[in-house]
Amino acid sequence: MFFYLFLFLFCFSRNLMLIRKACRLFAGSRTFFTIAFVRLSTTSSIMAKSKFEYVRSFETDDTCLRNCYIVVRLDGRNFHKFAEQHKFIKPNDDRALGLMTRSARSVMEELEDIIIAYGQSDEFSFVFKRSSTWFKRRASKLMTHVASQFSSSYVFYWKEFFEEQPLLYPPGFDGRVVLYPTNRNLRDYLSWRQADCHINNLYNTVFWTLVQKGGLTTTQADDRLKGTLASDKNEILFSEFDINYNTESAINRKGTTLIWEKRDETVIKRMKLPNEEEKEVLVTRSRRRVEAHHCDIIGDQFWDEHPDILEDDNC
Amino acid sequence: MFFYLFLFLFCFSRNLMLIRKACRLFAGSRTFFTIAFVRLSTTSSIMAKSKFEYVRSFETDDTCLRNCYIVVRLDGRNFHKFAEQHKFIKPNDDRALGLMTRSARSVMEELEDIIIAYGQSDEFSFVFKRSSTWFKRRASKLMTHVASQFSSSYVFYWKEFFEEQPLLYPPGFDGRVVLYPTNRNLRDYLSWRQADCHINNLYNTVFWTLVQKGGLTTTQADDRLKGTLASDKNEILFSEFDINYNTESAINRKGTTLIWEKRDETVIKRMKLPNEEEKEVLVTRSRRRVEAHHCDIIGDQFWDEHPDILEDDNC
Amino acid sequence: MFFYLFLFLFCFSRNLMLIRKACRLFAGSRTFFTIAFVRLSTTSSIMAKSKFEYVRSFETDDTCLRNCYIVVRLDGRNFHKFAEQHKFIKPNDDRALGLMTRSARSVMEELEDIIIAYGQSDEFSFVFKRSSTWFKRRASKLMTHVASQFSSSYVFYWKEFFEEQPLLYPPGFDGRVVLYPTNRNLRDYLSWRQADCHINNLYNTVFWTLVQKGGLTTTQADDRLKGTLASDKNEILFSEFDINYNTESAINRKGTTLIWEKRDETVIKRMKLPNEEEKEVLVTRSRRRVEAHHCDIIGDQFWDEHPDILEDDNC
Amino acid sequence: MFFYLFLFLFCFSRNLMLIRKACRLFAGSRTFFTIAFVRLSTTSSIMAKSKFEYVRSFETDDTCLRNCYIVVRLDGRNFHKFAEQHKFIKPNDDRALGLMTRSARSVMEELEDIIIAYGQSDEFSFVFKRSSTWFKRRASKLMTHVASQFSSSYVFYWKEFFEEQPLLYPPGFDGRVVLYPTNRNLRDYLSWRQADCHINNLYNTVFWTLVQKGGLTTTQADDRLKGTLASDKNEILFSEFDINYNTESAINRKGTTLIWEKRDETVIKRMKLPNEEEKEVLVTRSRRRVEAHHCDIIGDQFWDEHPDILEDDNC
Repeated sequence: MFFYLFLFLFCFSRNLMLIRKACRLFAGSRTFFTIAFVRLSTTSSIMAKSKFEYVRSFETDDTCLRNCYIVVRLDGRNFHKFAEQHKFIKPNDDRALGLMTRSARSVMEELEDIIIAYGQSDEFSFVFKRSSTWFKRRASKLMTHVASQFSSSYVFYWKEFFEEQPLLYPPGFDGRVVLYPTNRNLRDYLSWRQADCHINNLYNTVFWTLVQKGGLTTTQADDRLKGTLASDKNEILFSEFDINYNTESAINRKGTTLIWEKRDETVIKRMKLPNEEEKEVLVTRSRRRVEAHHCDIIGDQFWDEHPDILEDDNC
Repeated sequence: MFFYLFLFLFCFSRNLMLIRKACRLFAGSRTFFTIAFVRLSTTSSIMAKSKFEYVRSFETDDTCLRNCYIVVRLDGRNFHKFAEQHKFIKPNDDRALGLMTRSARSVMEELEDIIIAYGQSDEFSFVFKRSSTWFKRRASKLMTHVASQFSSSYVFYWKEFFEEQPLLYPPGFDGRVVLYPTNRNLRDYLSWRQADCHINNLYNTVFWTLVQKGGLTTTQADDRLKGTLASDKNEILFSEFDINYNTESAINRKGTTLIWEKRDETVIKRMKLPNEEEKEVLVTRSRRRVEAHHCDIIGDQFWDEHPDILEDDNC
Repeated sequence: MFFYLFLFLFCFSRNLMLIRKACRLFAGSRTFFTIAFVRLSTTSSIMAKSKFEYVRSFETDDTCLRNCYIVVRLDGRNFHKFAEQHKFIKPNDDRALGLMTRSARSVMEELEDIIIAYGQSDEFSFVFKRSSTWFKRRASKLMTHVASQFSSSYVFYWKEFFEEQPLLYPPGFDGRVVLYPTNRNLRDYLSWRQADCHINNLYNTVFWTLVQKGGLTTTQADDRLKGTLASDKNEILFSEFDINYNTESAINRKGTTLIWEKRDETVIKRMKLPNEEEKEVLVTRSRRRVEAHHCDIIGDQFWDEHPDILEDDNC
Repeated sequence: MFFYLFLFLFCFSRNLMLIRKACRLFAGSRTFFTIAFVRLSTTSSIMAKSKFEYVRSFETDDTCLRNCYIVVRLDGRNFHKFAEQHKFIKPNDDRALGLMTRSARSVMEELEDIIIAYGQSDEFSFVFKRSSTWFKRRASKLMTHVASQFSSSYVFYWKEFFEEQPLLYPPGFDGRVVLYPTNRNLRDYLSWRQADCHINNLYNTVFWTLVQKGGLTTTQADDRLKGTLASDKNEILFSEFDINYNTESAINRKGTTLIWEKRDETVIKRMKLPNEEEKEVLVTRSRRRVEAHHCDIIGDQFWDEHPDILEDDNC
């Protein structure tokens, strides 16, 4: 009998309003109609779901080519304006850089297949190991998860670095994925970002020195630097302001490199002795931690000192 | 003369250490060597950057096919655990849903080409208009920006909804991009998500009613519901707990649909009169705002009432 | 015992040469060693295959977005030179165009989901219906199969069109895949190709008329046409050579459009009568065939006359 | 004045039929109207082309990741049937294999960036060097050109191998593109294909020996081989038919590997001497040619002997 009811109701399934109105007329026999209506609405919902499910097949597969390093790079959206509104110190704000690094560390701890991350200014690059199978190597999942975790961390840890100064609005970062097939290509990618850091930081250092110590307006400083080579900028710093650029803070000149390192940790543990007494003992164990470096990563030294970061090309 | 110096130094460019050591020997003639060294390091950095820049060509183009709707769907990562740790009320936590909607609104206000967004539980879908040219339709940019803005907003607005209850750690969302060529396909996508909302919410409502009001353990409730149809679930609610599922809160049954709507806004403005006096006047103007709906979007009524959301297929 | 032999041999599996040499020393006991060797080589081959099979996972999925028209366009490689070497008649060689159309027909008959094909000069476009599931909509399979079938047909049918004139070498065509989400987009694509046909053919017609009838050198003809509008070209043809371009052969002006059409076919069949006699009867049946048109496909008329080619956008 | 005519006509541009009819009414003033019409049709065609050209932007970029080997593999379509219809000799037809190799050679000679090709049965794989920039590394162009050149060559050279036996219809091949980032991955790919060759050829050899020499039906031979290991197959050949599989023809057991090799070529040249006499001299020069090998390419020996095929991973 329910079958016929179902058939009857189904004919009206596109006009549920009508049925609802009809139901009201028979309000006295409430139980029957409610059950009938319930049966209708649920039956058609389940049908609906399977009827609509074909839309899943429009998703495309964006699996990253195997045996390649997967690099996700994030860039701050409109960070020029964001920096101004939040009064970032020029040319480099230690709090802002610290917060970037803290957020990047949060990403690495969440996604353990990231073997190295490199950041400078308002950008951070994350490198997944070439044999990674996280999210089945699906590019969209990898990059959105990195972008999401980084962004929520940036707001979450803001206070640790900016204390009483409030965050005015939620900032945005956008990302991309790039694949590198060989160790040489990957190292060249990281060298490219560090060379970029060098060029930008040298420019910013001279520019703001001319403004803050030299008394130039920003327009004058800009004019002064137009067409200068890097060497000219070094000479301005050295001869006019007695600043040796090469002894400036490494974090600004070299950016921040995060890697996993094993460190010995010694903790105090309470142990029970056979005679029911307790005793405190020192236990040393090796733990994998994310460590920050501010050194050159273009040359071989860093890579020679950390041979475990890269996997062999011949795999 | 500097040219020869450059040549000489360039030969050593891979052995900067050596040069640095040499420099120390001639510490007396500091100026000369610093300048020379500066020239070297900067020259080689610029060379370095152009030498490394080839890595940019490894980026692939992920432009979304033109004239298709671009859907970005976000899903909470491990939100089952997140909900437990933050004591979300079962089966639906109004604060959590409110925060999801607030974050989605923040995304829509940032990315004005999003014409409609639909959310339920810990997921939200954002639909870009088919003619959008945001980020040149690059899939990676679109989805990372949505994921980032949503995530930073979630942390940023947490307090507005959870007040004194602290956020324990920064949450993560992952995303994907799907393209839909026609209005029918797009509507079927949204219907699919709303049908999913219905099925999950009905289950959760019965499950937690059995536990909270019926005194069952979660295992017992699970067993009780095994194999039941939607109609059976409705009958349990109605006959055992006198609950008519169809009168339960629409936000839970239907999810949240965000669209842009024009609303008249009346503001008080002070105007200067010709006689130098000032006067307050009421000014009404139409403003485009993001508005939330909790209605059925499977049928035609919603779409008939908002004919501007979809662009014509014949374009 | 074979198990140990296997283990022993397996250690040497990378030095098969050694084993082969060892085998020769024991040539007397040939049977035993051959069997042993056989067992080795086959065991290691099978191991080898499964060991290498991981390389399959480097294949990427290139499924075409559902519900879009899939267009495969082929272009002749170096056909300028090919035409010269095979003495194609200028401006249009009927044999060459006929061969192109014959090859395209061969592709359509092989791949029945192609609903329309359009060709001009040395190019041909093939349109798969939007609901096609041929080759699971894998772009690579679709375009290579079209390119392959077209190319082998071009050589196969050469003689039908060029008779005694030999084909000097196997020609090449390259292809691409483009997706179109709506009927409007697809029609605009085909209009674009037909507009291209018009422009090129008008130019070629005037150019070769100036050379063949006007006595100009190719350089002079080129100079004469530099900067002329289409209208100028029409006027040259009309006023100097009394040629009305619009009455020139439609195949050259409009290109070739291939579609599936139902045609009644009448065949003679021998039937046995009850009295054992045989009788010839005329049987008419409707058959789907590829038919060629040389008409305008930019305007609506063609599409109004063939409403079955396109599927509705609202699907 | 033409400007106004243009404007007037343009309004009707979607109703050309009307204008044509109007033209007929004024047939007496033919010259004027033809020119006017000409101006119209050509003006609107050019407008048309630019109006439609937006469809180009629907093409997607399918550039292959840099610094990876690009493998294009072709497979015969329905070659089981094709082989039967053309009476290919079982288990291996030397003419058919020769024609496959001839066609592959034609592809390599056309596309010089192919460093190695490997074929067996009705398939052939072509490997482009990792630094290749052919067709800007566009996957669609690479694979369609290979498929097209191979297919036209197959028909073109058919006679050289099958002589009087006619080709019944144009055959089809489909293709795919796979990228391999390292030398190890590429060699494993080629090993995978050669291991496949071994397994199939061993099976076919035993199967057809059982049928042709053992007098079994194909069903009986199939049953006999069900569940047998490679070693069992070798033993059947050896003990029942006195065939040592390892001394069978290498082309069948190992397939065909094509590489570029430098060979000295000696040609006779006529030279003019100072005293006006002519003399024939032998001139030897080194020329790069495609050479075929039928050896093992799984082990290291082949690669050690041809160190120039692969580029270093560290590039």
